[in-house]
Amino acid sequence: MATLKDVAREAGLSVGTVSRVLNNRGYISEETRQNVNRAMKKLNYQPNEMARSLSKQRSSMIGVIVPTISHPYFSKLIESMERAAHQEEYDLLLFVSQGRVDREEEYVRACISNRVAGLILCTGSVRTARLKNLGFPVVAYERLLNEADAGVECDNYEGGILAAQELIRCGCRNLLCISGIGEVSMPADVRRDGFMDACARHEGIRTQFFCCSEERITDLRYKSQLDECMDLYPDVDGVFASSDVIAAELLGVLSSRGKRVPEDVKIVGYDDVFVSELTTPDLTTIHQPVQEMARTCIDIIRRASENEAFPARTVLRVNLVRRGSTRTAQDE
Amino acid sequence: MATLKDVAREAGLSVGTVSRVLNNRGYISEETRQNVNRAMKKLNYQPNEMARSLSKQRSSMIGVIVPTISHPYFSKLIESMERAAHQEEYDLLLFVSQGRVDREEEYVRACISNRVAGLILCTGSVRTARLKNLGFPVVAYERLLNEADAGVECDNYEGGILAAQELIRCGCRNLLCISGIGEVSMPADVRRDGFMDACARHEGIRTQFFCCSEERITDLRYKSQLDECMDLYPDVDGVFASSDVIAAELLGVLSSRGKRVPEDVKIVGYDDVFVSELTTPDLTTIHQPVQEMARTCIDIIRRASENEAFPARTVLRVNLVRRGSTRTAQDE
Repeated sequence: MATLKDVAREAGLSVGTVSRVLNNRGYISEETRQNVNRAMKKLNYQPNEMARSLSKQRSSMIGVIVPTISHPYFSKLIESMERAAHQEEYDLLLFVSQGRVDREEEYVRACISNRVAGLILCTGSVRTARLKNLGFPVVAYERLLNEADAGVECDNYEGGILAAQELIRCGCRNLLCISGIGEVSMPADVRRDGFMDACARHEGIRTQFFCCSEERITDLRYKSQLDECMDLYPDVDGVFASSDVIAAELLGVLSSRGKRVPEDVKIVGYDDVFVSELTTPDLTTIHQPVQEMARTCIDIIRRASENEAFPARTVLRVNLVRRGSTRTAQDE
Repeated sequence: MATLKDVAREAGLSVGTVSRVLNNRGYISEETRQNVNRAMKKLNYQPNEMARSLSKQRSSMIGVIVPTISHPYFSKLIESMERAAHQEEYDLLLFVSQGRVDREEEYVRACISNRVAGLILCTGSVRTARLKNLGFPVVAYERLLNEADAGVECDNYEGGILAAQELIRCGCRNLLCISGIGEVSMPADVRRDGFMDACARHEGIRTQFFCCSEERITDLRYKSQLDECMDLYPDVDGVFASSDVIAAELLGVLSSRGKRVPEDVKIVGYDDVFVSELTTPDLTTIHQPVQEMARTCIDIIRRASENEAFPARTVLRVNLVRRGSTRTAQDE
């Protein structure tokens, strides 16, 4: 493998000059620069990122900790993060915690050891005291963490309102909000608050709330709990599920009870992941601007590394995507 | 942040001794080791992975290139890879190529620059000449690449056979194989070969083949093509789809045509990802041992880094998981 020395010899320049070209330091003539680039290309020289990072004491990697990526929301998120990181010339160091606190703390230590440029935390269970003075910025994604340097979230409250308005528009009067995420995560609670508040503003609307307990977000299996839920609330005519995965499973549970969607029960999901278009009928849902949220996270880390100012909290808009699960006769 | 020097001072030892403890080099008494560990803990010392990697000229990172992770198969795969890597004390550097050759080659270069311990390639479009003499092992996942140091795959041919046998067992006589993956990927072709060969061994079985063209695997949208497919073959009574995502979309297409599954048409998918349990009815499918496949990839890289022998090709068994989409009256 070619070294810096080989490149210098090939270009007929000193090692110091080649290093200055590589690191963009001091004045370099265009001719010298082209000369070096030609030599690098000819020898297929790859700069050693590890050595360069060490001299900068900061790598070009961004650490991301997620609880899972089997869940389609997180797989969409990581795909968007990777794309945004790549555009800003960062590489992504991926950590999947399975929601385990010990593992998350271990991953934070791995980020310290690897001298990452920044950490994006998409889980809420790390003890926040561990996030102080890490030497790189921490961005909390869809989590409120006092110790994080910045937070990026979507407007979950507005999402809940939009879901309620859609079901009421369709003529539903007996509403149910199903939430499936445990206490470590705040978004589902805020969605419910928005939903309940919007319902309270309308007369003659009955609202119920059911929370699927889940040991870990990674399970993706709610069917038996949703079955119990439908035993408890057999008369609902409109359901807001706090994720598309729950909404999709609910379709199966309702079908096994002979209930038709959208004729007997209307459903609004949340996230707008591919699952919402895969079901029969496809799901009306609240679209989260995941790509924009991911880009914002990466941009905050880039700005921090360049000592630019960045926003401490960014809340991005959501919108309703209407599909088959809330179709009415008037919509035809 | 504490340095090696601080740890040495705290422990009352030389920097050289502390370094030997950290790198597990030479003889160290148990007392000295505990002394160093105590000092490291007290000062919250984090060894600088970058510096250590540089001295070894090899990092503790494994690069993985996938075409997408929005597809549930790849998200399950990456989750399994991360878990297996973590168990062997590697970190995962994730690259998502969107199936673009230029980007894949760029990612291979990023792996070289970062001095990864190994690369797992889950896409087939990198020009294989670029994979020679990288200085670290390349493992091809579900791809046949002559230039890779090792290959890990599931028994796709056997999977095709199992799918055919299941449909024939259910009494289907007019079979269709739907494949959705383009020319860059070989697994779907081998599945079809197994399927067709098994059908040929039975008398009175008619088999058709339909290939969804897809610009990129990332799209996950097959509905309009599946609709055309059903126009072409309206009389099929059994379908083998080369992924659960295609099988799930087919359920919607058949439902819109008034065809019932499993009464009128039986379906077998492939992969056994969570989508197969989310649909109504849930999908009979061929289970891929993704966790075992991921573990095998990581293990090959660990062995290579320790100069141990490793298998050049590993083919893992698949099995049929029977669910609602092939249920018959006898199964009740």
